[in-house]
Amino acid sequence: MQLSIPQFELVSNMFSFTIAAMGAAALFFFFAGGPLRPKYRIAVYVSGVVVAIACYHYFRIYQSWHTGYAITGTEATAVYQETNTPFNDAYRYADWILTVPLLMVELVAVLALPVLLGRSLLTRLVIAAVAMIALGYPGEISAEPTTRWIFWGLSMVPFLYILYVLLTELTSSLERQPEQVRGRISAARWLIILAWSFYPIAYLATTFFPGNSTAEVVLQVGYTIADVVAKALFGVFIYLIAAKKSEIEPAETSSLNPVLA
Amino acid sequence: MQLSIPQFELVSNMFSFTIAAMGAAALFFFFAGGPLRPKYRIAVYVSGVVVAIACYHYFRIYQSWHTGYAITGTEATAVYQETNTPFNDAYRYADWILTVPLLMVELVAVLALPVLLGRSLLTRLVIAAVAMIALGYPGEISAEPTTRWIFWGLSMVPFLYILYVLLTELTSSLERQPEQVRGRISAARWLIILAWSFYPIAYLATTFFPGNSTAEVVLQVGYTIADVVAKALFGVFIYLIAAKKSEIEPAETSSLNPVLA
Repeated sequence: MQLSIPQFELVSNMFSFTIAAMGAAALFFFFAGGPLRPKYRIAVYVSGVVVAIACYHYFRIYQSWHTGYAITGTEATAVYQETNTPFNDAYRYADWILTVPLLMVELVAVLALPVLLGRSLLTRLVIAAVAMIALGYPGEISAEPTTRWIFWGLSMVPFLYILYVLLTELTSSLERQPEQVRGRISAARWLIILAWSFYPIAYLATTFFPGNSTAEVVLQVGYTIADVVAKALFGVFIYLIAAKKSEIEPAETSSLNPVLA
Repeated sequence: MQLSIPQFELVSNMFSFTIAAMGAAALFFFFAGGPLRPKYRIAVYVSGVVVAIACYHYFRIYQSWHTGYAITGTEATAVYQETNTPFNDAYRYADWILTVPLLMVELVAVLALPVLLGRSLLTRLVIAAVAMIALGYPGEISAEPTTRWIFWGLSMVPFLYILYVLLTELTSSLERQPEQVRGRISAARWLIILAWSFYPIAYLATTFFPGNSTAEVVLQVGYTIADVVAKALFGVFIYLIAAKKSEIEPAETSSLNPVLA
């Protein structure tokens, strides 16, 4: 595959932007988490862990992009040509298999549900998240459209289950939450639903147009924007929920998180 | 030795995943340890130190893997061929000689045993852990099957002693622990026993099949998974024990750790 210079540079710049955004978010979550009530700090620290993991992987992804393509041709005809060292898609999946379950941990931790309800929700969401990523990978690395479709479909099953849980059980647990944070929790939930829906669509870009450079750029830029929204921006919502709850709850309820202690 | 492209990439991706997992765990342990009682913080901070050391070493191991093999051949016949710079197994042993005794420190610290019992247990476990790693190394770097077997056997002696201590003395000290954490302590102990048993088995892969590329991949992937389980996942159990004990113990018992102060 060949990429034009603007195509290669757009993706490279998006990767670099994301290293900065994720690293910045990590610093913010680790420092801004400190003044919150202990019960809610853990949700914000887990957000910090998620964006720190993503920051690391975007460093690797950036490097892999730069070793995966090399400029060839004369000045007038210069293009980026694939090298013998293929761009490594596995960094994304290594990232997701760590971070996607942790995003579920953040969400459940900030809700501070009663322990049994919280643990049941957490267990199911984490297992579904791991299954969703693990089932997507064999399709992602395959060049065979049938294989790509099969694993896309298999990965959609746990994805739809997560959406179902977020839209039913999480909605009904909203009533247990203080009125002042219901809007923020609902917004965080919609952020996940919309950002996560972007991944299966971006995946299909290279399924429909294999070897097409525009599809590859759409995939890389799409995954990258979705990652920034689903991790850094979602983490900001988690912080805002944790901060508001820290402010309005009476001091005596402060202790360690019921679900994670 | 030659590795196929998927073999080389599997190991490389496992190393990168482990850098991320260990680094993430380090951030979590250092930040999430803060809200715990001072007495239990030290166990979680030592967990943080262990995974930070491992994160560093996996950076080195990743680099060494990438300089130890180079792609050769045309596109159709491309394989990874060993270079003149051999892959450096010593990074693992440098890691283990630091981290394995510290894992014993974590475990004894979180139990917060009476000082004499705790110190005696700690001293014996640390000495055995150092002996286990130091005796394994001469076998690991040898290509001679006899030498490999001799040091495997010598290293098994302190290893079996550690298992014996964990299964006898640690089991009897379980009764001193609050009921709410006995299940977690027992789980942490079994995690060590199972994860640590994996190392002597992975070691034998290259003893039985020297110069075999599959055996090398099994060894590297096996050691890596065992490290993630024995350090990061074990640390999560230590955190959960420390968090629960922080929550249930009356405030006046809070002080520095009896064994480490």
